[in-house]
Amino acid sequence: MAAQASTANNRGHLEPFACAMTQAPLTRAHCEALDAQDPLAGCRDRFTLPAGVIYLDGNSLGALPRCVPERMRQAVEQEWGVGLIRSWNDAGWYPAPQRVGARVAQLVGAQGHEVIMADSTSINLFKLLVAALRMRPGRSLIVGEVGNFPTDAYVAEGVAELTGARFEAVAPQEVMAALNEQVAVLSLTHVNYKTGRVYDMAAITQRAHEVGALVIWDLAHTAGALQCDLNGCDADFAVGCGYKYLNGGPGAPAFAFVAQRHHAWLRQPLTGWHGHAQPFAFDQGYRPAPGMDQLLVGTASQLGLIALESALTAFDGVDMAALRRKSLSLSDLFIRLVDEQVPGFGLATPREPDLRGSQVSLTHEQGYAIVQALIARGIIGDFRAPDILRFGFAALYVRHVDIWDAVAALKDIMGTREWARPEFMAKKAVT
Amino acid sequence: MAAQASTANNRGHLEPFACAMTQAPLTRAHCEALDAQDPLAGCRDRFTLPAGVIYLDGNSLGALPRCVPERMRQAVEQEWGVGLIRSWNDAGWYPAPQRVGARVAQLVGAQGHEVIMADSTSINLFKLLVAALRMRPGRSLIVGEVGNFPTDAYVAEGVAELTGARFEAVAPQEVMAALNEQVAVLSLTHVNYKTGRVYDMAAITQRAHEVGALVIWDLAHTAGALQCDLNGCDADFAVGCGYKYLNGGPGAPAFAFVAQRHHAWLRQPLTGWHGHAQPFAFDQGYRPAPGMDQLLVGTASQLGLIALESALTAFDGVDMAALRRKSLSLSDLFIRLVDEQVPGFGLATPREPDLRGSQVSLTHEQGYAIVQALIARGIIGDFRAPDILRFGFAALYVRHVDIWDAVAALKDIMGTREWARPEFMAKKAVT
Repeated sequence: MAAQASTANNRGHLEPFACAMTQAPLTRAHCEALDAQDPLAGCRDRFTLPAGVIYLDGNSLGALPRCVPERMRQAVEQEWGVGLIRSWNDAGWYPAPQRVGARVAQLVGAQGHEVIMADSTSINLFKLLVAALRMRPGRSLIVGEVGNFPTDAYVAEGVAELTGARFEAVAPQEVMAALNEQVAVLSLTHVNYKTGRVYDMAAITQRAHEVGALVIWDLAHTAGALQCDLNGCDADFAVGCGYKYLNGGPGAPAFAFVAQRHHAWLRQPLTGWHGHAQPFAFDQGYRPAPGMDQLLVGTASQLGLIALESALTAFDGVDMAALRRKSLSLSDLFIRLVDEQVPGFGLATPREPDLRGSQVSLTHEQGYAIVQALIARGIIGDFRAPDILRFGFAALYVRHVDIWDAVAALKDIMGTREWARPEFMAKKAVT
Repeated sequence: MAAQASTANNRGHLEPFACAMTQAPLTRAHCEALDAQDPLAGCRDRFTLPAGVIYLDGNSLGALPRCVPERMRQAVEQEWGVGLIRSWNDAGWYPAPQRVGARVAQLVGAQGHEVIMADSTSINLFKLLVAALRMRPGRSLIVGEVGNFPTDAYVAEGVAELTGARFEAVAPQEVMAALNEQVAVLSLTHVNYKTGRVYDMAAITQRAHEVGALVIWDLAHTAGALQCDLNGCDADFAVGCGYKYLNGGPGAPAFAFVAQRHHAWLRQPLTGWHGHAQPFAFDQGYRPAPGMDQLLVGTASQLGLIALESALTAFDGVDMAALRRKSLSLSDLFIRLVDEQVPGFGLATPREPDLRGSQVSLTHEQGYAIVQALIARGIIGDFRAPDILRFGFAALYVRHVDIWDAVAALKDIMGTREWARPEFMAKKAVT
């Protein structure tokens, strides 16, 4: 492995962290210096992180924002306990899916009324796949990617079985070539969950539109982690997750984006009462609500929405360009340190910064046991079968010294073969 | 209106409340006496109820069980904040949908492995309608009820549009006659949301089976409110809500039931990764999990599940037959007091106890304003267009004296025309 400086996302204004690094072997003091000049360093105080833990799994479950416990206490004890049913009106529960959606919209480059929170990422993908197919009558091909997060493929299979469409998964490098006039909809995840590889959203969307296809972007590993400009890319649809980089808590509500130009043609299949034009008229016939409200189905998970809304204040005042620069600085540093200090690992993540999300995935045939040994030391990443060690860098709370300490621990675990202990080799379920 | 004593559900053992009533005009002292002999009286302490409120809307949002705030604090601060991603294994998050489902199963007469928590009632109904249609190839008719809760009809419409099935809603009294060899699936709500009328689950299920049809029961107003014996009725499928009589909090996860005999044939269309046979193998091809796990789609709402699981302890040691007796005693009392003291209301709820759920619905052309005037006095029921005043009697925490005081307030509001104040006449959204 050879280190590579981050330049592509450092055009101009702020001092790039990675470029400030010396070419001499790095020390922990270098990392401390990088943290000292980090404009986002103060954001770490917005989270409660347990002592003795270096948390590199914010891409799977975001850390707890400091404001959330008190907000939840108030929501449970006051809004539910005292307000009771009145809180649907008085505590702003009804408009929460739209209100929280509008906040997420700011993080993904959409207009506020183009994003709504609802259900799970998988269910939102189902809605939008069917809606997209209905906008392309005469076409019945859904194109996906081999190696996409499985649920995206499973849901597309399910939609194909139900609607008579056909689902075809192609290799990442064949996506552009697979776009033709047969394709109704292309369904891709922007940042690959395993490798952290990033698709060129603008170029792929443009090519899809040239052949008359629509695109659904899964932003599970994008929202809150990378700069994302859905409107700037002329995106059609997107879905994404509330519990990863958005820090909304376990099983937080997901989001859906539909470009305004498609709102009038939107017809999603999960026709529940909260998506009705007048839910409280209790009409018998379904009439879809205009705009994004149609994507609501049943009663929204208010406790989940409240936690997520509170959590999103961790992004207040954060420049997403600065966050992206820090994220790349962290992943550059991690790659360089592993290159220098810990031989024997493959790198599944692109070295080119523009092609890399906010994670680094190493490969090793003992990956599972090595991840367990790291976790036992309080360094929390995760394992993805068959051989991926995945480390996510949530730039709001991960520091450069954390990277140093994590790699130092990895070096020690490999040098002493600590990973080979029976308790680390024994498999259990992991996320 | 004429009062009628509750007998049908009081066969034997415990002293029926309602039968203990005198035929002389009732007094508040009578109600106090009924509460004094209430074997469930102690359950009220399991809830935190705000001072000055009589809560008759537990059928819309259950009250807050006393144990929930501390459980939520612990879940947020410790399981999420400290355990972080490790809590999926270490805090029992993964098996929560099955574990909580097994607890709900006890309340609805099912085996533990026949119930799972997932998504919303509407979404679970979608899954089961499609699954039921797939079990009846060659049939394409879904029968529902005119006057069912709208989302049930909307979802059936959506399924029909997507699958080519046909959806037909018939009047309640025509359901039996509508069952024939064309019908694939009958979709009914056990207790009507507006009127509180109860279907005969056993007889209808039996008749449906005689013509080869399957039945999906929506137990939104049943679970936690009435005795329910899904297995005893030979039921096929059911769905239900976590936030009404189960007290799981706003937007709590819903449940789904599938009789064990159907598990091998179950094929639901929302094919997400948590319903896969091996979610963490990250295979590309979808293989449904055996049994109820297949009904999972995306990542479960853990905060919602944790609140609901904690809330369900309010049912610990509660005899559902005793709960049903108390519920009928409360609704009998309410009907009798309105009969005696407040003329001018219609009664939308059956007087026959066996045909009545755990609510009483009055009708009045000024229903909206009257409900607002009651709410202003802290007596919380709800309004359902066009003219229904709905009062739910959650027997775990509503007392006979609450009924007395609520009717006394209603009498006063009607006598003084307090309801006619402009602030009560002005419409706003209500649940």
